[in-house]
Amino acid sequence: MSAPTHDLGIVKRNIVRADKTAVEKLSRFGVATIHEAMGRVGLMRPYMRPIYVGARACGTAVTVLLQPGDNWMLHVAAEQLQPGDLAVAACTTESHDGFFGELLATSFRARGAAGLIIDGGVRDVMELTDMKFPVFSRAISAQGTVKATLGSVNIPVVCAGALVNPGDVVIADHDGVVVVPAGVARRVADAAEAREANESDKRARLAAGVLGLDMYKMREPLERAGLKYID
Amino acid sequence: MSAPTHDLGIVKRNIVRADKTAVEKLSRFGVATIHEAMGRVGLMRPYMRPIYVGARACGTAVTVLLQPGDNWMLHVAAEQLQPGDLAVAACTTESHDGFFGELLATSFRARGAAGLIIDGGVRDVMELTDMKFPVFSRAISAQGTVKATLGSVNIPVVCAGALVNPGDVVIADHDGVVVVPAGVARRVADAAEAREANESDKRARLAAGVLGLDMYKMREPLERAGLKYID
Amino acid sequence: MSAPTHDLGIVKRNIVRADKTAVEKLSRFGVATIHEAMGRVGLMRPYMRPIYVGARACGTAVTVLLQPGDNWMLHVAAEQLQPGDLAVAACTTESHDGFFGELLATSFRARGAAGLIIDGGVRDVMELTDMKFPVFSRAISAQGTVKATLGSVNIPVVCAGALVNPGDVVIADHDGVVVVPAGVARRVADAAEAREANESDKRARLAAGVLGLDMYKMREPLERAGLKYID
Amino acid sequence: MSAPTHDLGIVKRNIVRADKTAVEKLSRFGVATIHEAMGRVGLMRPYMRPIYVGARACGTAVTVLLQPGDNWMLHVAAEQLQPGDLAVAACTTESHDGFFGELLATSFRARGAAGLIIDGGVRDVMELTDMKFPVFSRAISAQGTVKATLGSVNIPVVCAGALVNPGDVVIADHDGVVVVPAGVARRVADAAEAREANESDKRARLAAGVLGLDMYKMREPLERAGLKYID
Amino acid sequence: MSAPTHDLGIVKRNIVRADKTAVEKLSRFGVATIHEAMGRVGLMRPYMRPIYVGARACGTAVTVLLQPGDNWMLHVAAEQLQPGDLAVAACTTESHDGFFGELLATSFRARGAAGLIIDGGVRDVMELTDMKFPVFSRAISAQGTVKATLGSVNIPVVCAGALVNPGDVVIADHDGVVVVPAGVARRVADAAEAREANESDKRARLAAGVLGLDMYKMREPLERAGLKYID
Amino acid sequence: MSAPTHDLGIVKRNIVRADKTAVEKLSRFGVATIHEAMGRVGLMRPYMRPIYVGARACGTAVTVLLQPGDNWMLHVAAEQLQPGDLAVAACTTESHDGFFGELLATSFRARGAAGLIIDGGVRDVMELTDMKFPVFSRAISAQGTVKATLGSVNIPVVCAGALVNPGDVVIADHDGVVVVPAGVARRVADAAEAREANESDKRARLAAGVLGLDMYKMREPLERAGLKYID
Repeated sequence: MSAPTHDLGIVKRNIVRADKTAVEKLSRFGVATIHEAMGRVGLMRPYMRPIYVGARACGTAVTVLLQPGDNWMLHVAAEQLQPGDLAVAACTTESHDGFFGELLATSFRARGAAGLIIDGGVRDVMELTDMKFPVFSRAISAQGTVKATLGSVNIPVVCAGALVNPGDVVIADHDGVVVVPAGVARRVADAAEAREANESDKRARLAAGVLGLDMYKMREPLERAGLKYID
Repeated sequence: MSAPTHDLGIVKRNIVRADKTAVEKLSRFGVATIHEAMGRVGLMRPYMRPIYVGARACGTAVTVLLQPGDNWMLHVAAEQLQPGDLAVAACTTESHDGFFGELLATSFRARGAAGLIIDGGVRDVMELTDMKFPVFSRAISAQGTVKATLGSVNIPVVCAGALVNPGDVVIADHDGVVVVPAGVARRVADAAEAREANESDKRARLAAGVLGLDMYKMREPLERAGLKYID
Repeated sequence: MSAPTHDLGIVKRNIVRADKTAVEKLSRFGVATIHEAMGRVGLMRPYMRPIYVGARACGTAVTVLLQPGDNWMLHVAAEQLQPGDLAVAACTTESHDGFFGELLATSFRARGAAGLIIDGGVRDVMELTDMKFPVFSRAISAQGTVKATLGSVNIPVVCAGALVNPGDVVIADHDGVVVVPAGVARRVADAAEAREANESDKRARLAAGVLGLDMYKMREPLERAGLKYID
Repeated sequence: MSAPTHDLGIVKRNIVRADKTAVEKLSRFGVATIHEAMGRVGLMRPYMRPIYVGARACGTAVTVLLQPGDNWMLHVAAEQLQPGDLAVAACTTESHDGFFGELLATSFRARGAAGLIIDGGVRDVMELTDMKFPVFSRAISAQGTVKATLGSVNIPVVCAGALVNPGDVVIADHDGVVVVPAGVARRVADAAEAREANESDKRARLAAGVLGLDMYKMREPLERAGLKYID
Repeated sequence: MSAPTHDLGIVKRNIVRADKTAVEKLSRFGVATIHEAMGRVGLMRPYMRPIYVGARACGTAVTVLLQPGDNWMLHVAAEQLQPGDLAVAACTTESHDGFFGELLATSFRARGAAGLIIDGGVRDVMELTDMKFPVFSRAISAQGTVKATLGSVNIPVVCAGALVNPGDVVIADHDGVVVVPAGVARRVADAAEAREANESDKRARLAAGVLGLDMYKMREPLERAGLKYID
Repeated sequence: MSAPTHDLGIVKRNIVRADKTAVEKLSRFGVATIHEAMGRVGLMRPYMRPIYVGARACGTAVTVLLQPGDNWMLHVAAEQLQPGDLAVAACTTESHDGFFGELLATSFRARGAAGLIIDGGVRDVMELTDMKFPVFSRAISAQGTVKATLGSVNIPVVCAGALVNPGDVVIADHDGVVVVPAGVARRVADAAEAREANESDKRARLAAGVLGLDMYKMREPLERAGLKYID
């Protein structure tokens, strides 16, 4: 029997993290490649952006469900973070407040966290940039938050339109944020590798002037679809 | 081992629908009440709005995953609808096109569907209003769609920020759209009933001039929190 | 040699209006039908909404290019309106101010105008509703405007993402706003009529329980595309 | 010495309300007229909309500063409401949650309140509609709120972009929401009356076919500005 | 007789490109200068942003009309690109998907294209940055697209609110994107040059402390408009 | 008796600027720190962003109220700027036009201005970046503006949701923009200093692996609130 998506006031301590080798392999590919390798699914909404140029992160999700304007659960989550984890924070409603800053980043880093994905706002962005602590967020805001109402840690969450289960692999770069369920991480990593291998040949041919129309054999289907050339 | 949220190209025929008695009981309560009864979780984002004043719907979810600008899967979903079902359509990316109109509504109604929840656009809204076919959508748009690319039917989807599994109860009214997982439908229906019973007494006292400050015994916690009255 | 899209400070007095019979025929169809009949082109962005339930308009475009927060050109346009015209107002930049209200509507109606389409804001909406003067706008705002800077009347404008030439037929209802170029008005009107005739048969079959899957013969192409049914 | 705009944790009990006669007179005019009479200032942002067709409110402001997702201060404000007051609620950050519903409306009405203006969300909108309790809000949402963090009552607030001091007159209709400072209420009411008187003559002339170009003597300034008529 | 703006399924091979000398001259000026030189018209909406700091592009437009979530026509357009062309892609509806990435950029560059302006999303932004391939888009998204439905190439399109005809000069920098119709390119280039020459003198005087109030002789018109100085 | 928020057509010459020592001290702290030191109030909305990486500004406000698409008042404001002032420009309605560019920045700098905060658009952003003239705005747009309608200078304005009185201290960095009323500048500066001193110890302990849960003694209140740990 399925449980509600969100149970408030719960911290799950033991989660099954995706296979380390698969995580390591996935960390070598871009988000667009992984998303394609998984069959064009699993992306967060494109409003999630890196807070500095060059930010990139890959890790196993420790999920957090926040309440609007309240960052209590990020402190609770810190204790659950293990080296290689990536904190993934959703909020019960849309909120752009500054839930996270330099002090929490210092704590998360001390725990070995690989970064933060947050469907909310963050602050101290220049300090986070100096620390090279990768954060992907929907907003930047100095607005302080309270510690008054319970959310949860390590329950399934919907973050920026994507379902994230604790232990899933989450990869973020300048193209977006993608979620790879733990159970398919190895298969997706292999598919991404195959796809990447395949691209360098295509790149070379396109650079040499071959048209995609010919390389992908599109002329015939385009004609069948009714495309007309006029002068 | 968990599966990816979204598998494209799949139609699941046999789904476990929530208990009919629980659905019937839930249909008697408003979205705000049910959301509270469930512990303040399960709401879709508030951009989902009814297409006409007075629209209201409750049913068991037949889920649909659409591709942008493509309504093929709504035709596939029609066949899976049973009396009392509510179609719940998500899209792989944000799209405001008019995926649904009068003809599809005619077909859905013939199948016994209770309405449509769609994280996209619809058209023929005056005709849908005349039919009293309840639709809750993010947009209204005359833009036509194609039938070219596969999505899926009856897989778990994220619709307007909420996770919906096929068979879950979905209730929609002017306050929003809430998802009650099939496994907790009965318990939530009972809790909603209890909550509703409790409200009429409160309403009478407030109408008689009793203040919430006193009725909810807030004066002491407010003072403890530091509230100061000045003249 | 093509002219710039927008020349400021110009009023074109003689414009070629679409054929009256075609306009009359188009007025009998909905926006979604006409948009389909034209090949799925010509729609304005869906943020254009009617200011009251039941608003509907069809007429030949007298175009107006406004400056932000300035409604001077609407007064200039009034003189160019002839019975059956529909004023279509674009703005050089995005502006939500209240460019139009009851007094201008009184004047427009006295000229025989069929309504207003404006990529900006309007005010006096309750009075306009009482007058049954149809307005489709991007916003409602009481904000007053000045009369200080020139725009133009009867030049080609881009309104809510659609190109409108003076004299084109513009049709607006609850599904959106569509632009039919004057030169194809007759052909599109005929196509819309044919499409409408075709729909009543489809509606009857769908109401009788025939599935779109069968009526549109989609099963075979779906299978070819790889759709899989699972239990 | 000026105080900070927002002091948290304060309730001011004695406020100076605008003159009752002026409030009564202002209640007879529309928002657009009052805004013009005041010199085109004092409007809230146009995202503030009535929750039902025909909603209208006018009263002296009891101001509330809310925290995101927290409606505690609305309960505190209830006690400060006197007959003829209008609650005006701002939030420290943008929040669309459902801060207000039927029970609070029942309490506000028992205190004699004329309605609610809230830069946030509300719920129970069908019940509020049945009660004819006028609410103007930025959103509708079933999302419940907590009672955990202090805001303030009867301090100056910025609501939807407009500064509101306790005791100011606030008028809301379908065109928007306007704030008239208590100190100028009488003068603005008189100016609105004069403006309204002036409009009926204009309306009659425009209805008779007189052009604004002539009535407002715009032809000469338009020519001076360089307007060119072409054929 | 005018044709519809958008005809689907058409590729126009022979287009009249703006004069090369004019294009070269326009490439030396900023977008703000050219926009002013043209009379303050021709700008795309400001949501069009460069994907990397320092991006800049100028070329003759090869226009593309895309379908949502479908990048087939970009492959078709590649063949029509000549050295010095700039691809300008609009979409039939709003779409933020990643229509374009490194492989297409490699192909476009091999054809001599100067960059891409797209009213949609792009991906592989770090790779495009490394390539110094200038792209101006409304969004960044890893979301993949299909190749299933026809759009057109080299028809007039409305891109981000601006009309673009094939062969027009399009200039993009950090201030925005401006369209110069081919027929006025030479005149606008000359006007931009004159404007630029004029600015260096102004800059020097302002840097020396001369006020714009005096340099532009604004004091008298300000006084006439009623400006009052108070202490 | 309070005056209307906005009086149009007024320039106040003598304003009381915040104490210079307090301004200097505030300039050493970040926006998030100052906002916390002031009690979590005074922030502008987070849509205000720096136009270049590393921008930072602090100064006493010279306020400007603009009309949409009209930058006349910025020229008027230039004369009122004194060394150490920061221009803070609001607009009567939302407008994204390019009100400000390189020439005005040259003039403002010649007057000793510390930068510009504008609830509107700016242009010449690459030139402003080269000048290291800090600007925080809601938009970047090449769109030119007119000089036709009066606003005001040095009246209280609401800028991006925050009330700003002339003479207040305004501080802007990558986390946002905060307003410190002149009358509390000294007290807030001291509080910010104390807060900063306090943070370095916390940072060290968190870096050493101490959890916020322990450092802030959160375990007991979390348990009281009902937090449950499960395995």
